[in-house]
Amino acid sequence: MAVSSRRAFEDFSVGLRFRSFGATTVTAERIKSFAAEFDPQAPHLDEAAADRSTFGGLVASGWHTAAIAMRLIVDSDLGLAGQGAGLAVQSMTWPLAVRPGDALRVEGEVTETRPSRSRPEQGLVTFRVTAFNQHDQPVLEAQHLVMVARRSALGPAE
Amino acid sequence: MAVSSRRAFEDFSVGLRFRSFGATTVTAERIKSFAAEFDPQAPHLDEAAADRSTFGGLVASGWHTAAIAMRLIVDSDLGLAGQGAGLAVQSMTWPLAVRPGDALRVEGEVTETRPSRSRPEQGLVTFRVTAFNQHDQPVLEAQHLVMVARRSALGPAE
Repeated sequence: MAVSSRRAFEDFSVGLRFRSFGATTVTAERIKSFAAEFDPQAPHLDEAAADRSTFGGLVASGWHTAAIAMRLIVDSDLGLAGQGAGLAVQSMTWPLAVRPGDALRVEGEVTETRPSRSRPEQGLVTFRVTAFNQHDQPVLEAQHLVMVARRSALGPAE
Repeated sequence: MAVSSRRAFEDFSVGLRFRSFGATTVTAERIKSFAAEFDPQAPHLDEAAADRSTFGGLVASGWHTAAIAMRLIVDSDLGLAGQGAGLAVQSMTWPLAVRPGDALRVEGEVTETRPSRSRPEQGLVTFRVTAFNQHDQPVLEAQHLVMVARRSALGPAE
């Protein structure tokens, strides 16, 4: 895991852009094993059944795509790693299915920052994030609200 | 996987309640292995570091909790299995952390149904769902929008 920086609340500002350092390639095997554990529905589990579905082939569970997007956010220059606590997802959509062999990356932008009223050592940061496939087509769009420590509350870098 | 019924769009109505058939117990091992793949941050990865974090101990990634909740929705009497396609999550919050040994179940309710304008063979169903731990404390609250086939478009039961 490459983490280039660790930002305190004061280091986030509206318009700050971030992107993942790399990309994650999705395999048919992991699509099926993730679905067997978390979303056992035919289009994610079985190629033959998926071919007959409206998807016309095996597609990742949206929750698999969402989990991959989280990993790409951690492995990005947003700088949340090790200190951010997710409070809410304010919206999440899957504009296009993720298929075996797709290579996903994320890009995003901070859309709001505000101090926490109840926790003076914390601030709230809202960002939107889009996961793209290798054809630069959006496959997931989401808006996240996270709690981030203020600089005064941050310990030494790990 | 126990699926008691398979509902067409016409079978959903506002106020319809559903619940998972069983519960899923979350282990420390799976919390850590899920996080290593999808959300490698200290509170989800390492007991000692988690003890020093604001959580005071190992907690599941919110995306792990969300994936477990999806499995519980599939294994519920909502009847989505095999035909529902998730379009969007309209909100999702994590009111309380999930810790090793917690046993999660879900309950929910349909909040809106409407025909699809663009796809006459489909309808849109909105439901809210809450995942509870074994102390009946909410650990995840979400609102989902899914596309469901109309009865005329449903094939024979699988």
